[in-house]
Amino acid sequence: MTDYIPFRDDRSAARPASPPESPPSGTLPPPGSPDILIARAVPPRPIAEVAARLGLDADRLLPFGHDKAKLPHDLTDGLAARPQGKLVLVTAITPTPAGEGKTTTTVGLGDGLNRLGHRAAICLREPSLGPCFGMKGGAAGGGRSQVIPMEDINLHFTGDFHAITSAHNLLSALIDNHLYWGNELDIDPERIAWKRVMDMNDRALRHLTVGQGGQGVMRRDGFDITAASEIMAILCLAADLADLQRRLGEILVARDRSGRPIRARDLGADGAMAVLLKQALAPNLVQTLEHNPAFVHGGPFANIAHGCNSVMATRAALSLADIVITEAGFGADLGAEKFFNIKCRQAGLSPSAVVVVATLRALKMHGGVAREALGEVDPEAVRRGARNLARHVDNLRTFGVPLLVAINQFDQDAPEEHETLRQACGELGVELVVSSHWRDGSAGSEALAERVAAMLEEEPAPALSFTYGDEARLEDKIRAIATRLYGAADISLDDGVRQRLEEYEALGYGHLPVCIAKTQYSFAAEPAMSGLAAGHVLPVRDTELAAGAGFVVALCGSIMRMPGMPRRPASLGIRLDPRGEVDGLS
Amino acid sequence: MTDYIPFRDDRSAARPASPPESPPSGTLPPPGSPDILIARAVPPRPIAEVAARLGLDADRLLPFGHDKAKLPHDLTDGLAARPQGKLVLVTAITPTPAGEGKTTTTVGLGDGLNRLGHRAAICLREPSLGPCFGMKGGAAGGGRSQVIPMEDINLHFTGDFHAITSAHNLLSALIDNHLYWGNELDIDPERIAWKRVMDMNDRALRHLTVGQGGQGVMRRDGFDITAASEIMAILCLAADLADLQRRLGEILVARDRSGRPIRARDLGADGAMAVLLKQALAPNLVQTLEHNPAFVHGGPFANIAHGCNSVMATRAALSLADIVITEAGFGADLGAEKFFNIKCRQAGLSPSAVVVVATLRALKMHGGVAREALGEVDPEAVRRGARNLARHVDNLRTFGVPLLVAINQFDQDAPEEHETLRQACGELGVELVVSSHWRDGSAGSEALAERVAAMLEEEPAPALSFTYGDEARLEDKIRAIATRLYGAADISLDDGVRQRLEEYEALGYGHLPVCIAKTQYSFAAEPAMSGLAAGHVLPVRDTELAAGAGFVVALCGSIMRMPGMPRRPASLGIRLDPRGEVDGLS
Repeated sequence: MTDYIPFRDDRSAARPASPPESPPSGTLPPPGSPDILIARAVPPRPIAEVAARLGLDADRLLPFGHDKAKLPHDLTDGLAARPQGKLVLVTAITPTPAGEGKTTTTVGLGDGLNRLGHRAAICLREPSLGPCFGMKGGAAGGGRSQVIPMEDINLHFTGDFHAITSAHNLLSALIDNHLYWGNELDIDPERIAWKRVMDMNDRALRHLTVGQGGQGVMRRDGFDITAASEIMAILCLAADLADLQRRLGEILVARDRSGRPIRARDLGADGAMAVLLKQALAPNLVQTLEHNPAFVHGGPFANIAHGCNSVMATRAALSLADIVITEAGFGADLGAEKFFNIKCRQAGLSPSAVVVVATLRALKMHGGVAREALGEVDPEAVRRGARNLARHVDNLRTFGVPLLVAINQFDQDAPEEHETLRQACGELGVELVVSSHWRDGSAGSEALAERVAAMLEEEPAPALSFTYGDEARLEDKIRAIATRLYGAADISLDDGVRQRLEEYEALGYGHLPVCIAKTQYSFAAEPAMSGLAAGHVLPVRDTELAAGAGFVVALCGSIMRMPGMPRRPASLGIRLDPRGEVDGLS
Repeated sequence: MTDYIPFRDDRSAARPASPPESPPSGTLPPPGSPDILIARAVPPRPIAEVAARLGLDADRLLPFGHDKAKLPHDLTDGLAARPQGKLVLVTAITPTPAGEGKTTTTVGLGDGLNRLGHRAAICLREPSLGPCFGMKGGAAGGGRSQVIPMEDINLHFTGDFHAITSAHNLLSALIDNHLYWGNELDIDPERIAWKRVMDMNDRALRHLTVGQGGQGVMRRDGFDITAASEIMAILCLAADLADLQRRLGEILVARDRSGRPIRARDLGADGAMAVLLKQALAPNLVQTLEHNPAFVHGGPFANIAHGCNSVMATRAALSLADIVITEAGFGADLGAEKFFNIKCRQAGLSPSAVVVVATLRALKMHGGVAREALGEVDPEAVRRGARNLARHVDNLRTFGVPLLVAINQFDQDAPEEHETLRQACGELGVELVVSSHWRDGSAGSEALAERVAAMLEEEPAPALSFTYGDEARLEDKIRAIATRLYGAADISLDDGVRQRLEEYEALGYGHLPVCIAKTQYSFAAEPAMSGLAAGHVLPVRDTELAAGAGFVVALCGSIMRMPGMPRRPASLGIRLDPRGEVDGLS
């Protein structure tokens, strides 16, 4: 197992190995150039211009610089009554180190639809700052399908992650402060479930002892990375400010000594946390390289949380655009499942189409090819790898939403490999579209955009089928996902875990959806069982109640919530050049 | 000793005890109304309008919303060659819980000068977020002399504190990561001087053990509040981006096992930290209630750091305005001393005048009156308390800059108390101006503004005298401050401390100024020795090298770097009202 499990699983697509060089000023560098060079060669248009394409008046925006803005609450409140556009989900096959490019395809498809004259917007997650300095770079698409300003988006952006960090740690401080001043609520220091967070890859903070030196009650604690905070999930699922404050109050932080739950509102923390998050809840608007509107808002982990951008941004986009393209983290087994069963269920969203992204490189890796040999033409490996795609296609069909497969094309792709895959898709009865947006921007995604637009014209809109009903037992909800989507024979859980699930039900949380936390590299709980695990038993190791976010987490396998940095962190190559420009961030 | 030592010492001035009520819409509430009601009754003008008064084109600003902006680096770089305005320092007597109102007077004086037709700007420090939810409210002036938008300024503002937190903790993470991967630099884990920071009042984080559970090297560590970070001091003293990156590299983070210093640049951390701080280094522009320009940038602790706003903002303001009013933390013994001996020395600033702020209430407390009895007329107590003022006046004269005394007038002030103070000032040979800006805004500070403007017309500009020369021994620099300004007979330090000072000299840091960390409540190191301590011996308990900030800290007495929260934290009263407005923040 590596030391670091990325929470954004699609960053490495199209990432070049060679360092960027200075671009010819004012011209777009040739296709295949490093992402950063392409991004820098395109000056962002004023965000007011981008907003105007959505019919928004610049005066109503909250600007952050000239190329970023938030949609303030009075604006989004006013949008609620508008007719809603159609929603398209971009998901992917099981991730491999070769990448599939969900973000890149989301951007490319959005640009392609705009090129065809549709009013389309995209909705992405915000990248986390920590990993930029640790393992790898940011997350803003790739090639000619990127969102800009790339550096801002990858660094502090509009401060949302910082606000979440502050709100989370305020609650933590209030817990220890309560202990210090006599513990009126009789909180059991051994049963505090609320840790602290930091937007940093810092393994030394995973396990620590706070309250030492006579400064309060000494107890074990730890830091997670901010993207793993329940507050991130809350921000992404809240319908509005009032719902945000209510959800924050619901957070279950501890048990008292007789086992009763202590919530954030019992500590009087919900109001101040909501105040800290007020601005962060407002959706962020930026643009693609082709100056089309892009909402980039919220970035919850895709394992212990639901891995989708915010409901606020998705809804605002649907009120302003005719077609909205969004993505969900990891492969379809995790990301799309949670998108449907958690996000769509909670927010009442009805997606009209699904695009499943694959690359030939990733399919070949699923077909058993080593990373070093991916450059060789190998249609047979593509065919073998297509079995992973087939599983995801079968799974996605259970939701009842029309779908197609998009190949995120690279320069090395061989026509015969495409042909093999086209045959495999034909056997599956699913349409395949090869799309070269990474290389060519919207000129390369026109075909994909045309096919998606055609799917959206079909009426009536499909009725969404969930994997389980609200009323099912929590244990059965987990079982339904495992058996219907992971190909598992059953789940296993010990009495303690079962007891906790029953306790959540007794507390009135039985209606919540479940959020499976497991490896993204396999349908099973073990990364090594990649590809086509079937007939296995999914071990539910532990469970957590995210009462504010509104789901029950089922922990299957080990989940990293605080990444570490490698021996040579990415930060080593990052600095200001003599002109004060950022060098080395990618 | 209280659990909490405020790093901004002038917040409580004019703070009302009663909760705010809704103001009559569109009209300014009557004088003496709660700060928040006054602040909310004045809609900010577009920041572009405020900038235009400084001759700045809106297109060159980096907007944050419609009422806040940063001056980007290309803009400030271009200002350097301009003629410089005149700089006025606002400082104060020894602080008491009754407050003196340095910030309020800085705002009032700036507004008064603008009212008289001068092009004046003010420079303030940024408030810290943590204390807003702990002990008391924000720091944006009071009454009709405030800066707005008050809520934004007190919360995330333009993200500067968050950027400092990130940069600081990146360096911390890189240290532990270096230990984890084999400790090539042979860092002695027992001699790591770089802790972690959070912008939060959280006593449980003061002392902790990191790296537990086999996650790296287990060692003792702790968190300070962000305002106490050396990076905050660096941001405030850096001349430009290149100087920022250079200073970050100089930070001394640890010793290796043979005692050699390990700097941030040895860990390759300086570049990534500079990138994280690039935007934060750009000065923030907001406005006063009277829509005059206010730079609010940087907020270093006034005890373990130098307690002044940023050099970048001060210089930008001096290039854009004819008169710039700024303040320094705590009383003149700490704030003004460091303003002159550290900030002016490093930045080559030459202030033209000093205003010493006092209130009758604070003078009466120095004269022995209990807080409950401050409402009673007591000229004799004022006369006794004036001895504290006299000491500060004498001290300030040693810097060679002309000065006057400003009384920050309150409604309860009695004319005979003013008269007593006027006599005392007459005996001191210093002018006294009574100013009612807190009650009346610029209409109340006209007289003060006239007198300050008259002082500035005198030519030639005074030559600034420092308390010690660069070439003096570090120990002698501390002694000079103690004997010349604190009235101490001498300093005491044990061999270990003396050895460390000699070691700093041997490392080439002997030319640095010293930064005294001691209580703000006394000229001595003990808060209880308030008022007029004299002939005492100042104990130098320990010393620290802030090589990036460029000063040597002399620790005298106990200094709190991570505040705690009281039994009933301020956060309890803060929440979003049903309209989504912030309620309870003050």
